[in-house]
Amino acid sequence: MNGQIQDWGEMAQMRLSEISACSLPGEGVTRLPFTDEHRQANKIIAGWMQTAGMDITLDAAGTLVGRRQTGGKRGTKTFILGSHQDSVRNGGRYDGIMGVALACLAVEKAFTDGCGPDFAIEVHAYADEEGVRFPTALLGPRALAGSADIAVLDFADENGVTLRAALDAFGGDADAVLSIARESEDVIGYLEAHIEQGPVLENDNLPVGIVTSVCGIERNTIRINGKTGHAGTVPMRGRRDALVVASQIISELTVRAEALDELRATFGTLTLLPGAVNQIPETVTLSLEIRSPSDADRRAFSAMAHAFTAETASACGCTAAMQQNYVQPAQDCHAPFMDKLEKASLVHQGRNRLLPSGATHDASAMAVLCPMAMLFVRCRDGVSHVPEEHASATDMGIAIRVMSQFLKSL
Amino acid sequence: MNGQIQDWGEMAQMRLSEISACSLPGEGVTRLPFTDEHRQANKIIAGWMQTAGMDITLDAAGTLVGRRQTGGKRGTKTFILGSHQDSVRNGGRYDGIMGVALACLAVEKAFTDGCGPDFAIEVHAYADEEGVRFPTALLGPRALAGSADIAVLDFADENGVTLRAALDAFGGDADAVLSIARESEDVIGYLEAHIEQGPVLENDNLPVGIVTSVCGIERNTIRINGKTGHAGTVPMRGRRDALVVASQIISELTVRAEALDELRATFGTLTLLPGAVNQIPETVTLSLEIRSPSDADRRAFSAMAHAFTAETASACGCTAAMQQNYVQPAQDCHAPFMDKLEKASLVHQGRNRLLPSGATHDASAMAVLCPMAMLFVRCRDGVSHVPEEHASATDMGIAIRVMSQFLKSL
Repeated sequence: MNGQIQDWGEMAQMRLSEISACSLPGEGVTRLPFTDEHRQANKIIAGWMQTAGMDITLDAAGTLVGRRQTGGKRGTKTFILGSHQDSVRNGGRYDGIMGVALACLAVEKAFTDGCGPDFAIEVHAYADEEGVRFPTALLGPRALAGSADIAVLDFADENGVTLRAALDAFGGDADAVLSIARESEDVIGYLEAHIEQGPVLENDNLPVGIVTSVCGIERNTIRINGKTGHAGTVPMRGRRDALVVASQIISELTVRAEALDELRATFGTLTLLPGAVNQIPETVTLSLEIRSPSDADRRAFSAMAHAFTAETASACGCTAAMQQNYVQPAQDCHAPFMDKLEKASLVHQGRNRLLPSGATHDASAMAVLCPMAMLFVRCRDGVSHVPEEHASATDMGIAIRVMSQFLKSL
Repeated sequence: MNGQIQDWGEMAQMRLSEISACSLPGEGVTRLPFTDEHRQANKIIAGWMQTAGMDITLDAAGTLVGRRQTGGKRGTKTFILGSHQDSVRNGGRYDGIMGVALACLAVEKAFTDGCGPDFAIEVHAYADEEGVRFPTALLGPRALAGSADIAVLDFADENGVTLRAALDAFGGDADAVLSIARESEDVIGYLEAHIEQGPVLENDNLPVGIVTSVCGIERNTIRINGKTGHAGTVPMRGRRDALVVASQIISELTVRAEALDELRATFGTLTLLPGAVNQIPETVTLSLEIRSPSDADRRAFSAMAHAFTAETASACGCTAAMQQNYVQPAQDCHAPFMDKLEKASLVHQGRNRLLPSGATHDASAMAVLCPMAMLFVRCRDGVSHVPEEHASATDMGIAIRVMSQFLKSL
């Protein structure tokens, strides 16, 4: 590592420290879309974009757009880098906003290094990826991809303010959201940097990793019905204990998921009735979220879980129903972009690590519009969405170098 | 079966139907201690006792006591039959009160049949066994056994009425509770009839069963601490999922309990944090209640569960703590009484079934004072504490014959 890497990373760290003050009071960062904090943050981001030689606009969906034409050429095609400015409540100072900061610095570095592409480069700071204020998210990239559902504009926050009203008051234009869709042929691609939000890079001792795909997701509710009874008077044999059935399902499906490559199965919620220390559980309701970079693997696991749940319940004299509430297909990253990122990261960290993204990102929405790639940056202890969330200046510096080299190689 | 059996059982059924009207409005029976409903019920019970030739008093602890001296003899010793008059909220018409009704009819039948013992016979209707109104129970039998804790007199119901005030207003005498303790040498024994509250007799197609002991009980809280994380970004291997650990514990300890004779292990409550569909469970808190007629078996299971919980958690990178909140030792039924009940039930139903009581009863408190025995009556579907709770007239008729013959054999 030379001094220059350190400088770009330190610059990123300094900027992220500064913008972390754009937050509601309280622990960590709380920056919700279309608020005063968002407005303050956009002022700072506009400064970053200007330093990178960009012209700035706010689009109808509330995305802050920085755009730089190359030298004297005026290419009609555009390459986009982006991420989101918002945070969860009491989140950290990296999730989302780091991607905006690294994009601005990568563009600045590319041009400093003499890059002169025959296409325009844009950096986007999307308003809302976390979906904390309104019960929807990703309006910005979806509008660009032509996949926005304008029904969400009528969704209201907890104070009864609709997304439409908040967006218009912020300087967007709810009525024009559908009109800002880009043509796929005009967009070369999309690149997003994000903290990994997991422990893979830390365990592998690598600053950055190249994302292969954004996992598909499905969410299911499993409901098991047995029979309650007195914990003292009903013999163990012949009990129809819904919690015992649930436990067998959780244990076995977890073991089966562990045996599969890159599939995740998580039972995140569980409630039971009647819920007394001396009563056998009659009803257990639990969630099963399945994620996989392979939709086929996800569907196969889901079908197996469906059958296993019914069989296990039946063997204990119980009944079970598993219902899918939500599904989102997987999206592959663009192989030629991955190649370029691999070449660049090989230069800057000596070896590569490919990994799927288990979480959804703005890139998921942009994938509908254009080829997409993502770069993950190692985060301490694999944690995100908490004040302790951390990425080092050194790692961010390497990410900037990789992204900058990627831009030059396009 | 002859017509006479049918008559005694039909009489019990009719009386239980009549007294079930002494209830708060709503589904099933709700009769709490020291209320208007209790007062109405005691008037009816007093009628049953008088029909059996008994003199009636209300003792200081609120127990309605019927006492019959034999013929001209005035024995100083007493044999007691009893049960409780109260119900849970929206309970049935058999739990507790059936034992009072059968006791009165058994005494009536014994004297009708020419029984003339050289001791007194009492029937007790205890005020409060369910502990629904006040956070305590069994004051009546504990006062008689000299084991009452008068600190409970200051406990209040949800309206702020203390047990002391409720008892005094009802006609009891809180200040005299300690003074009514009986001398062990004056009490020959105690017999209680109760619905089984389980499916054993139904499965065995038998009207009544003889209780061998009242199970000991311990209640534990198990708390498992793991590490939360994003359900998409944290790989399956290396997760420290507290719910997966809890599931392994529930599954395995249930299997081990099933392999043991007459032991019950029940996980009746479970809560988890953070409790979101896309977050790995970090903390799980669950209850483990263990019951056994053998205190040694219960302690051995508890120690095994303690060790297994710690090992299972540790193997998954989690920690676990298991804490005992409550313990109550087992109490054996009096073998000579069991012999007499066996002889009687052999006559009236052709064969016997011995079984432990998994639930606590007034007999648990009376066991401190004197030798104790219990007779279980088959209940439909093994259910209790619900409006559907049911015992047949035929089965109750057999119970009355068995109890009556038992009294004559003393």
